[in-house]
Amino acid sequence: MDYDAIVIGAGHAGIEASLALSRMGFKTMVITQNLDQIGKLSCNPAVGGLAKGNMVREIDALGGQMAKLIDASMIQFRILNQSRGPAVQAPRAQADRFLYQTLAKKSLESQKGLAIFQDTVTELILSEDKKSCQGVKTERGNIITARTVIISAGTFMDGKIFIGKYTAQEGRLGELAAIGLGDFLRKHGFAMGRMKTGTPARIRRSTIDFSKMEEQGGDNTMYPFSFDYDEIKDRPYAPCFITYTNEKTHKIIDKNMHLSPLYGGDIVGKGPRYCPSIEDKVTRFPDRERHQIFIEPEGLNTEEMYMNGISSSLPEKVQEEFIRTLPGLENVEIMRPGYAVEYDYIDPTTLYPTMESKHVSGLYFAGQTNGTSGYEEAGVQGLMAGINAGLKMNGEEPLILNRSEAYAGVLIDDIVTLGTDEPYRMFTSRAEYRLNLRHDAADIRLFEKGEKAGLRSKEDVEKFREKVKNIDAIKDLLRESRIKKELLTDVIKENALGKTLYDVVKDPAITITELKKVVPSLNNYSTPLLNHVELDIKYEGYIVKQNQQVNKFMKMESVKIPVDFDFSSIEGLSNESREKLIKIKPLSVGQASRISGVRTSDIAVLLLVLGKGGKK
Amino acid sequence: MDYDAIVIGAGHAGIEASLALSRMGFKTMVITQNLDQIGKLSCNPAVGGLAKGNMVREIDALGGQMAKLIDASMIQFRILNQSRGPAVQAPRAQADRFLYQTLAKKSLESQKGLAIFQDTVTELILSEDKKSCQGVKTERGNIITARTVIISAGTFMDGKIFIGKYTAQEGRLGELAAIGLGDFLRKHGFAMGRMKTGTPARIRRSTIDFSKMEEQGGDNTMYPFSFDYDEIKDRPYAPCFITYTNEKTHKIIDKNMHLSPLYGGDIVGKGPRYCPSIEDKVTRFPDRERHQIFIEPEGLNTEEMYMNGISSSLPEKVQEEFIRTLPGLENVEIMRPGYAVEYDYIDPTTLYPTMESKHVSGLYFAGQTNGTSGYEEAGVQGLMAGINAGLKMNGEEPLILNRSEAYAGVLIDDIVTLGTDEPYRMFTSRAEYRLNLRHDAADIRLFEKGEKAGLRSKEDVEKFREKVKNIDAIKDLLRESRIKKELLTDVIKENALGKTLYDVVKDPAITITELKKVVPSLNNYSTPLLNHVELDIKYEGYIVKQNQQVNKFMKMESVKIPVDFDFSSIEGLSNESREKLIKIKPLSVGQASRISGVRTSDIAVLLLVLGKGGKK
Repeated sequence: MDYDAIVIGAGHAGIEASLALSRMGFKTMVITQNLDQIGKLSCNPAVGGLAKGNMVREIDALGGQMAKLIDASMIQFRILNQSRGPAVQAPRAQADRFLYQTLAKKSLESQKGLAIFQDTVTELILSEDKKSCQGVKTERGNIITARTVIISAGTFMDGKIFIGKYTAQEGRLGELAAIGLGDFLRKHGFAMGRMKTGTPARIRRSTIDFSKMEEQGGDNTMYPFSFDYDEIKDRPYAPCFITYTNEKTHKIIDKNMHLSPLYGGDIVGKGPRYCPSIEDKVTRFPDRERHQIFIEPEGLNTEEMYMNGISSSLPEKVQEEFIRTLPGLENVEIMRPGYAVEYDYIDPTTLYPTMESKHVSGLYFAGQTNGTSGYEEAGVQGLMAGINAGLKMNGEEPLILNRSEAYAGVLIDDIVTLGTDEPYRMFTSRAEYRLNLRHDAADIRLFEKGEKAGLRSKEDVEKFREKVKNIDAIKDLLRESRIKKELLTDVIKENALGKTLYDVVKDPAITITELKKVVPSLNNYSTPLLNHVELDIKYEGYIVKQNQQVNKFMKMESVKIPVDFDFSSIEGLSNESREKLIKIKPLSVGQASRISGVRTSDIAVLLLVLGKGGKK
Repeated sequence: MDYDAIVIGAGHAGIEASLALSRMGFKTMVITQNLDQIGKLSCNPAVGGLAKGNMVREIDALGGQMAKLIDASMIQFRILNQSRGPAVQAPRAQADRFLYQTLAKKSLESQKGLAIFQDTVTELILSEDKKSCQGVKTERGNIITARTVIISAGTFMDGKIFIGKYTAQEGRLGELAAIGLGDFLRKHGFAMGRMKTGTPARIRRSTIDFSKMEEQGGDNTMYPFSFDYDEIKDRPYAPCFITYTNEKTHKIIDKNMHLSPLYGGDIVGKGPRYCPSIEDKVTRFPDRERHQIFIEPEGLNTEEMYMNGISSSLPEKVQEEFIRTLPGLENVEIMRPGYAVEYDYIDPTTLYPTMESKHVSGLYFAGQTNGTSGYEEAGVQGLMAGINAGLKMNGEEPLILNRSEAYAGVLIDDIVTLGTDEPYRMFTSRAEYRLNLRHDAADIRLFEKGEKAGLRSKEDVEKFREKVKNIDAIKDLLRESRIKKELLTDVIKENALGKTLYDVVKDPAITITELKKVVPSLNNYSTPLLNHVELDIKYEGYIVKQNQQVNKFMKMESVKIPVDFDFSSIEGLSNESREKLIKIKPLSVGQASRISGVRTSDIAVLLLVLGKGGKK
């Protein structure tokens, strides 16, 4: 069997990588250990959230799949932080886990040029000089050749489950680990480490007393993550519930801490700081009286409920004991216990910002395998790895998103420049220019990059151009109309008289919905589009300011460093900086400036040597 | 944790067993290795067929679940053998495999009193004297006690996959085997053996050229397997396709036969004679020019297609090579290879007809674990094991169906009396009184037994009584009306003049549909009900004759033998018969008469000793 590209793993990274490659016209095979587990939401049955929701929309803007999958499987939708500024607002949706999976598998199956194969990769086929990757070998002895291989193995490479003293070689509870590939990589000098993550118990709906909990519903209207349509139709709805841990819970956990594989030293890998186990929370915040726990439905056709916020790898009996101290869960039945899973990851500083290995060309890594956490984080990496692998095969320039244009850019720059020794999760606070990274404008930022990469159909492009035209048309409409006396309302008051509608929208108290009353032709445009324009106008001033900062930032970003640049030949660099630069191989002076330990004076030297002097 | 009953495995046997027990009011736990695999159709995506369809209806008549699951997930329905007599007709349906699974899981989750738990049982807890079962121990160290344990582990006990020279400890390809319990049973003296079964490759719809195949559709109307409703509404439809192997196919298989684990001696277990691998077919029928292969959809939301009739454990490359010789499959992509799986089974002659172990009380076995093959065969066993375990806990008489009243009776009598050394599959030909075993009359035969066991609600019972009343009413109606001149049609001719409608229906050429034209009040009854009455009447003569045979047969069946009967104390038995009787411990002289090696003269002795003299 011979392909252009092979993608190992069909989780959230593998799905994006394999779809991107085949959409770009490459003969691609995605290999997964069990076809029935494609696109599984291994942990919480939800997609999006702060910064994460933005990434889902970035995936969509570039031509990826995740937004469409959650749009068709959501059972609850919320825009988070609606009371706050647009830069920190983001969509989040609860998913029907089984439907999401079915649609994920179907999206791969519907893709022309993408072969889907059940097997387990155990080895890579390397060139004689070990400097390029030429294919894979599988557990069943299949040899499959390709010019490009992307590894997106999630928690499966040498996955090991922990529950109290119990351990098993599994990638998820009850599912075979992938044995072999991690060892192969280690043996061939890749910088591998161990990381861990965890998941809470799944409990049975009919054994929960919801009357003791607060219901948490979603917004009244579900909006799509995808830019391809304006509304979500006919999705059924299911609420979440909130309960709390208490002193009793914490006491039980505390008393049994010595039985935790985390604290007993059985687990080597580091866990996610921002998605800690309940053991971690109790230990780190001994003064907290309670922790909030969300009870989320796993889907419409199942009784299983997810317990957001209480992941644990304590023995099952202990889990049951402390879970039953939560109001409403006094008699709850556990269907699957919580557990920790430890797995192989690769040090992402050994990757270029294209996600390609610095040591073996044609080999890419994406997703949890790179030390990140989260479906959205995995998805963007898979997509960017797929796009860049495709561009390279086409002999084209790579697509490296910078920190001012996408959370995807922030994420990849962070991990390949700084590395990570605990599962990396995205936050709005990681982005310096987050006003530029509004979720609703992700397509304005990124569509054309996806188009250029070859991920967009002619129809997509026409639709996007139409949208841009409409945005301009709305703005023109607002600029042309002035407030006359007969247009005054409760909200649009006398002081607005004579102003253009454009200027009126700048008033935080006046929404575009209000303007619809006075300019009926605005009704010709969709709500998402009008909201987009409203935010553009309201935050114009801030955006102008931020763009000044971005321009400064881009000065250093735009000073590119060739892939094969010889840092050892530059005089005047400090030894530490030289070492770090040789290790990280930054592709721009901007990236170089963010490497920890590289000094400002050395950046000046770099700017000088690279010929632009840092000024224009 | 303490329960009344524990069911190990949530396949087709485990589902029926656990639902029956909890519906009878017992606190039950079903334990399975992966909650996401409950009710999986591991092999072909279809339920029913000759004799098998009858068993599905028997399960329903007794109060089981399988009929309802296939009714809600079917995508094609056929009554097989419509041109032949009712005794050999049976319903068969293609299923949407993923929907079937979802509904199966949901049916367990919706059941009050049934706990569902993900774990792997590795040991039984036995009483000190090893004579009764008191619970289970699991891989994760959970100890769960119960008065009853049912083992329905399918192909998972020490499951081992074979594809050419490749082997893996898996129960299905890509799924963990259950290690431990088989060894435990062996160590404790249970008569364990190895069996094997196989499954074909799954192929990709979009790579099939259907224009080179025959389409095979279903009947125009879908009828339910369940007796609880009269019609199937709003199910979408998908066709199957037929293609054929040819000389080239057979040559490739022949040439590579030495690479088969079956013929290389790697597989110890015996395979299913009536569902043979393509290797078996080619070897056993060297003169056959072609074998028919059905291409069946795995579901509506997947591109995977099943290849009925071409299961294989040859190396993958060989599978691909010979599959591509079939018309329409020249360029087909294989998504999962075919494979053989070998697994532990228990000699079913060590079980009573209640499915309880003769050696350890409170321990039951059901399904593939007993050496059978097929979802339907598994389902009836699970149901009967569940019912009998419940009856025993209630201190009630067991429910043993005899060979003249149910395929379930034939199946269980066959395996516990004769044993099996290859996967046992049901056929109409195995039943001596098959005219009595019509699928459409399964409820008339069995409903009241399910009712008595406690599996039926008051509403169910009322509905059934109503049905019986309606059948009588229709028959009365037909008896009361006579054919007058104005009622003659193209089909009802002059010679019918003056006859009752009842007598007219006996004419094979006249259907009840025809009679609707002349007696409009028949339109008040459902089609299934009218068909039922029609068959009752048409075959009345044969049924009367068969019932004479059944009565003879029942004479020996009704001479019961106590569980603790001491065969060694009977003088005049041949040594061979005595040995066999002690081993099999038959519960009736009828069962004794079917034990291979037990002589007719010895049966006469038994009848004498047991006090009825064989005559009444």
